[in-house]
Amino acid sequence: MNSALSIDWPPALQPGDVLAVVAPASPVAPEPFRAGVRWLQEWGFRVRYGEEIFQERPYEPHADQERSRLLAQLLADPEVKGVLCARGGYGSLKVLEYLDYPALAAHPKRFIGFSDVTTLLCTFYQRLNMVTFHGPTVAHLGEVTPAARASLRAALTAKGPLNRQFTGLTVLCSGQAQGPLVGGNLTTLCHLIGTPFAPQLAGHVLFLEDHNEACYRIDRLLHHLRLSGLLQEVAAVVLGSFTRCGPVEPLLEIFGAVLAPFQIPVLAGLPVGHQPDNHTLPIGAWAVVAASTGSLQIEG
Amino acid sequence: MNSALSIDWPPALQPGDVLAVVAPASPVAPEPFRAGVRWLQEWGFRVRYGEEIFQERPYEPHADQERSRLLAQLLADPEVKGVLCARGGYGSLKVLEYLDYPALAAHPKRFIGFSDVTTLLCTFYQRLNMVTFHGPTVAHLGEVTPAARASLRAALTAKGPLNRQFTGLTVLCSGQAQGPLVGGNLTTLCHLIGTPFAPQLAGHVLFLEDHNEACYRIDRLLHHLRLSGLLQEVAAVVLGSFTRCGPVEPLLEIFGAVLAPFQIPVLAGLPVGHQPDNHTLPIGAWAVVAASTGSLQIEG
Repeated sequence: MNSALSIDWPPALQPGDVLAVVAPASPVAPEPFRAGVRWLQEWGFRVRYGEEIFQERPYEPHADQERSRLLAQLLADPEVKGVLCARGGYGSLKVLEYLDYPALAAHPKRFIGFSDVTTLLCTFYQRLNMVTFHGPTVAHLGEVTPAARASLRAALTAKGPLNRQFTGLTVLCSGQAQGPLVGGNLTTLCHLIGTPFAPQLAGHVLFLEDHNEACYRIDRLLHHLRLSGLLQEVAAVVLGSFTRCGPVEPLLEIFGAVLAPFQIPVLAGLPVGHQPDNHTLPIGAWAVVAASTGSLQIEG
Repeated sequence: MNSALSIDWPPALQPGDVLAVVAPASPVAPEPFRAGVRWLQEWGFRVRYGEEIFQERPYEPHADQERSRLLAQLLADPEVKGVLCARGGYGSLKVLEYLDYPALAAHPKRFIGFSDVTTLLCTFYQRLNMVTFHGPTVAHLGEVTPAARASLRAALTAKGPLNRQFTGLTVLCSGQAQGPLVGGNLTTLCHLIGTPFAPQLAGHVLFLEDHNEACYRIDRLLHHLRLSGLLQEVAAVVLGSFTRCGPVEPLLEIFGAVLAPFQIPVLAGLPVGHQPDNHTLPIGAWAVVAASTGSLQIEG
């Protein structure tokens, strides 16, 4: 049953390894960045980054090409054992077209980020057939809970697949399903619809989170996704946090109303998103959803 | 040259005719609604509407189906000579799938609105081969300039094509081009990408406006549109107002950076959008752009 066996898990990092930081979206502010770096150093990594991660990027193609070039260079560097994003924000969408995916596939590395970086996580997963990691950016790392920090550390260093179980989730629609895990930021995913980078969601367990989007915008994003046909044959949906998106109850009703016709399990309350409890999820890993017990199990 | 000759112009209204008001997106507040209705009555129309246009809509499919049913009923009613939207807001996206387009094509009527209603304007134009009108909603009508009001009145009552010229526009990219006019709200158009209702923009003069979208969101929308391929073969772009979207100069630089590679004329400053100077544009009418003189001419 576990067809995730065919996916590549990039090599694990160990203490002393070089962990490179990139900012494929927005620049990062120095203070939250330093707080995150302290944790990475405490874990024994040699953290490498350039000053460009702090610099504003003009809205011009050459800036997008430059971010793309730096990202490709770090991913190809044999000394670099993993690549962690400095922060999300906005801009990953614009580096996608400049990356040489067959060339990147020759250098599998653990790649971590979330929010706007969802574009890269999903594209690398699907074009490189490689597990990527939806987890805290460096800027977020200083703010997350100890459990979320431990989750990132394990994702960086675990040799082979990660086994992980989330239980006690809220059941919006019952049922059982399994498939490779995919997802991330809802807004970011929607801005890939109809492009060559549109995520393939069929057969997958789809997790979603978002931040700072009014309730009507969440509804609009979901209906856009639905009308695009991308939700057809999704195996299950698991919702993370929707911070600053209005009250939770009406939001869950929206998800329930849009997703109920698909007759798939839908869970809510996954500790993932723009909140301190932002656990790291391996995109592309095999996931089993049992809505009867409110659990998401990642089998690696 | 003028291939717009093949498009249908729905019959003009005259004083005494019934003008129906629908709210396919959000409900309308009573006061701005009444202010708009007074103008319509002053022009001699009998304004017809139901109490549902004031009522909140739940985020549930039956509410979308009901808005769709009411819209279709009014469009098919032989006593109704034109249909004007009460306001935009959000929700038109969700009525598209419930409409029976071949049935609607049998009852061509002047249909007017903007903002969220862009979905209906573009879909009716492209599925019914019928000119639709991007102009003030009833709620906006009380706030617009006398010139914009006169523009709406002319769009309702002009027999046959409207000839109209906008001059003195800002030239972002020079050149000349012509084609049928299409467009509206940028955000709303982007949420159709990759759906069965995606607008066909090739060969068209595309006009865009938006409201209350941060600068980075405008950039994201434009790159989404670009990456989707829908901007390929667009004949020209004409920008209306981008109210509450940040300072104008950086925004125009964004448009310039994204659109320059297409080597098409790009103009800015069209008096259209979420501002008092919101003139009515006939979608589907033949338009000629001469960037050398900063003009958009609508030849009907």
